[in-house]
Amino acid sequence: MAKQQKTAITPTRAEDYPEWYQQVIKGAELAENSPVRGCMVIKPWGYGIWERLQRQLDDRIKATGHENAYFPLLIPLSFMEREAEHVEGFAKECAVVTHHRLEERDGKLHPAGELEEPMIIRPTSETIIGDTFAKWVQSYRDLPLLINQWANVMRWEMRTRLFLRTSEFLWQEGHTVHATEEEAVEETLKMLEVYRELAEEVVAMPVIVGEKSIGERFPGADMTYSIEGMMQDGKALQAATSHYLGQNFSKAAGIRFLDEGGELQYGYTTSWGMSTRMIGGLVMSHGDDDGLRVPPKLAPKQVIILPVIPKDEHRNEVLEYCRELEKDIAALSYDDEKVRVSIDARDIRGGEKSWQWVKRGAPLRIEVGPRDIAEQKAVLYRRDQGPKDKEFCEKRALINRIPALLQEVHENLFQQAAQFRDQHIRTDITSAAQLREYFTDGDEDSLKGFIRAPWCEEQETEATLAEMKLSVRCIPLQQEQGGTCILTGKKAEREAIISRAY
Amino acid sequence: MAKQQKTAITPTRAEDYPEWYQQVIKGAELAENSPVRGCMVIKPWGYGIWERLQRQLDDRIKATGHENAYFPLLIPLSFMEREAEHVEGFAKECAVVTHHRLEERDGKLHPAGELEEPMIIRPTSETIIGDTFAKWVQSYRDLPLLINQWANVMRWEMRTRLFLRTSEFLWQEGHTVHATEEEAVEETLKMLEVYRELAEEVVAMPVIVGEKSIGERFPGADMTYSIEGMMQDGKALQAATSHYLGQNFSKAAGIRFLDEGGELQYGYTTSWGMSTRMIGGLVMSHGDDDGLRVPPKLAPKQVIILPVIPKDEHRNEVLEYCRELEKDIAALSYDDEKVRVSIDARDIRGGEKSWQWVKRGAPLRIEVGPRDIAEQKAVLYRRDQGPKDKEFCEKRALINRIPALLQEVHENLFQQAAQFRDQHIRTDITSAAQLREYFTDGDEDSLKGFIRAPWCEEQETEATLAEMKLSVRCIPLQQEQGGTCILTGKKAEREAIISRAY
Repeated sequence: MAKQQKTAITPTRAEDYPEWYQQVIKGAELAENSPVRGCMVIKPWGYGIWERLQRQLDDRIKATGHENAYFPLLIPLSFMEREAEHVEGFAKECAVVTHHRLEERDGKLHPAGELEEPMIIRPTSETIIGDTFAKWVQSYRDLPLLINQWANVMRWEMRTRLFLRTSEFLWQEGHTVHATEEEAVEETLKMLEVYRELAEEVVAMPVIVGEKSIGERFPGADMTYSIEGMMQDGKALQAATSHYLGQNFSKAAGIRFLDEGGELQYGYTTSWGMSTRMIGGLVMSHGDDDGLRVPPKLAPKQVIILPVIPKDEHRNEVLEYCRELEKDIAALSYDDEKVRVSIDARDIRGGEKSWQWVKRGAPLRIEVGPRDIAEQKAVLYRRDQGPKDKEFCEKRALINRIPALLQEVHENLFQQAAQFRDQHIRTDITSAAQLREYFTDGDEDSLKGFIRAPWCEEQETEATLAEMKLSVRCIPLQQEQGGTCILTGKKAEREAIISRAY
Repeated sequence: MAKQQKTAITPTRAEDYPEWYQQVIKGAELAENSPVRGCMVIKPWGYGIWERLQRQLDDRIKATGHENAYFPLLIPLSFMEREAEHVEGFAKECAVVTHHRLEERDGKLHPAGELEEPMIIRPTSETIIGDTFAKWVQSYRDLPLLINQWANVMRWEMRTRLFLRTSEFLWQEGHTVHATEEEAVEETLKMLEVYRELAEEVVAMPVIVGEKSIGERFPGADMTYSIEGMMQDGKALQAATSHYLGQNFSKAAGIRFLDEGGELQYGYTTSWGMSTRMIGGLVMSHGDDDGLRVPPKLAPKQVIILPVIPKDEHRNEVLEYCRELEKDIAALSYDDEKVRVSIDARDIRGGEKSWQWVKRGAPLRIEVGPRDIAEQKAVLYRRDQGPKDKEFCEKRALINRIPALLQEVHENLFQQAAQFRDQHIRTDITSAAQLREYFTDGDEDSLKGFIRAPWCEEQETEATLAEMKLSVRCIPLQQEQGGTCILTGKKAEREAIISRAY
């Protein structure tokens, strides 16, 4: 029996996937639980990834003609009452503000100053933004109205997990108004495509782009679309959504405009969002048993230079060589930005330091010791390869290769995830019985994957799936043929992706 | 008598300054009141200014070694109780969350699911961040800990005014821990200098840098410093603050570290913040009777090209000339970024369109009509000059001058504000009686300014000033000599700035 290799993360993915997830986040110093139930503290390395994700998406949101704005954190209860399905969807999990000051009694603080109307902390902002849009939109000349907001939102989740499901999370929410249904649907799909591009070209996470089933729609939407990634335990993660809201919210908020013919019409609205949940997807797409692997476009540091100083007499020489290397690398560009490179000259053991960067997932590490200097060399480690795989490089050649290496790491991460995903999509399961058998074989955390099969799209069948702890993740936009519904045996126009999900 | 010139903003500053402020914000489409009491909607042009202010400050915060992170929106009441002065300062104005879901009864929504411990929406985050820092800091090797957060905060203000005082506002709050008092004080002053640089070099707002009096300190701080600008009604605006917190918050939260000698010590902490209030300061520093004037480094659009199309047959030719101009200008750089230029080709009256950009305060406007094209010319309007002052320019020469023109506008705005400020600082008032006489001459909104005078720094004297609706704005860091206290006649070591304030 082969000697088991020691890994930086305990347990491994195979041993205990949910616990591995927590340990990768801890090892990479991405985030931690806070004393406030379900709210996390996002630590600098995790927040640095979020900032880059924000910048990448924000650039794309602006390039497609949207402008950022900011709306209130609090929503009066009466606003929530205006859209019945919407309140149904969010009433069970929202933080309610009822007082506006504190009073000391018996040496303790108590809420005081009761509000006439309680307010909730926004779980999403359709209602409060809709109220403002009703004032901004008067004529067809005011349309389309294309607005985005970066904000924190709160949903009082009962079972929380860092990044994947937290009471407070950070996100962007786009909200638009259009004169016609056609335009609004086009917008919904345009932003869905922006999310696909972000996921695949920035996060290096392959996704399936599709339409949500009725049961999985956003509360109040006519249509919901999503991008779905496959995590390394075979479960699906909904990584972003885009909703066509029809006239539901414009009727609730009174968003009306005079059309070119002078008739008063309700606008057609959309909303779409991407959140810190994406970082959970990143961890579960690319993490390995040694920790996180950050896709290069998102890495707060893309290249880490580690000076190796066996004796104190080498210090100056090694550090100077490292600083030159850093300067040369910092002058390079990758993905239209300067390469982010740092020397880690902290005075701690070299092994400990290296492993920290492995666990954090910096794409490239370069070690430099006294002997490398003599030969004008350096040692390269790539995070997409084994932690001990190294390459001795001529210094100048290495510098020149950095942008290409970063792109290679990006592509490798994408390819590895795509290959894993494609190997775990089954298209040969044709009945509910087979479906049940497949998913009940082994324990609940055993690696399964996605089933792609024809589905009749009848809402009642979603309950059957729910009993098996499964759901329709999406009806992919790319369809080849329909067939016989896996659940009912009826004729099915389209195929669906069915799986376990986060 | 000279004919009164028509202005784009009614009333003018001289007629009714507070109303002028509201009208400038409305005319520039910066923000508006929301249905949630005291919370504003920040509109795209206002948010665009904020985004640039954020980027400018964020770059400086990072360049001084700080990292961004994110902490919970909610703070348990028990955390607030830990620092007595702090809770005293914020208890009277905070939003309290008491329930975590809504229930429908009698066709209406009601709060349900009472929390065991109520929580407040952060008015500032010393207590919740302190709790986390207590875990992060163990040894002197963990120090200094240099963290910043961009966030929304909430203070339930009774009298609100867009940007200047709102229940919810956006800000950054830096929080740091140091091993020694000396280092922490150095940090406090370093960030104060960052704020001065931001105010003067980015917002073009001259400020006085100084120490706050005891009565004006942040609740729980040992020392508070601020930058104070003079608005065009002579009142002071505190535009950012930096606090040395001593060991008060580290004792409250238990932030302790083992020093190099193996002794357990409490850390020394600082905090410092800049908020959307700065935009209120920008409006009141640079706005004129025709609307806003945005300092070029913050303008979402720095150059607006306005095509003049007298007849439809000119349309293509004019638009093509404008597009070329736009392309050439967009290739230029100013303040290390590409120049932000746009064509406004909306199909509305030219006069209305021009005035919109005057009111929004775009630094440069360029008009192009058919006759300009024949001569390869264009017409330049600068927002730092009169709205009708124009310059006929040779196209190529104009393009080449754009970066320098933007810098000229920046410097002009700064100079105008500095000159106004310096003309309204009086140093010849030497007694409380004179002070009272000066400030009670005319109505409450009449233009006064700052008094600079020796002050004994005794806290009781602040009440005397409060009776006169005045306060010590700061004790400037730059001191020449002390003298006899303006209020008590005692010996005074330093001079103070005394004025009305926002």
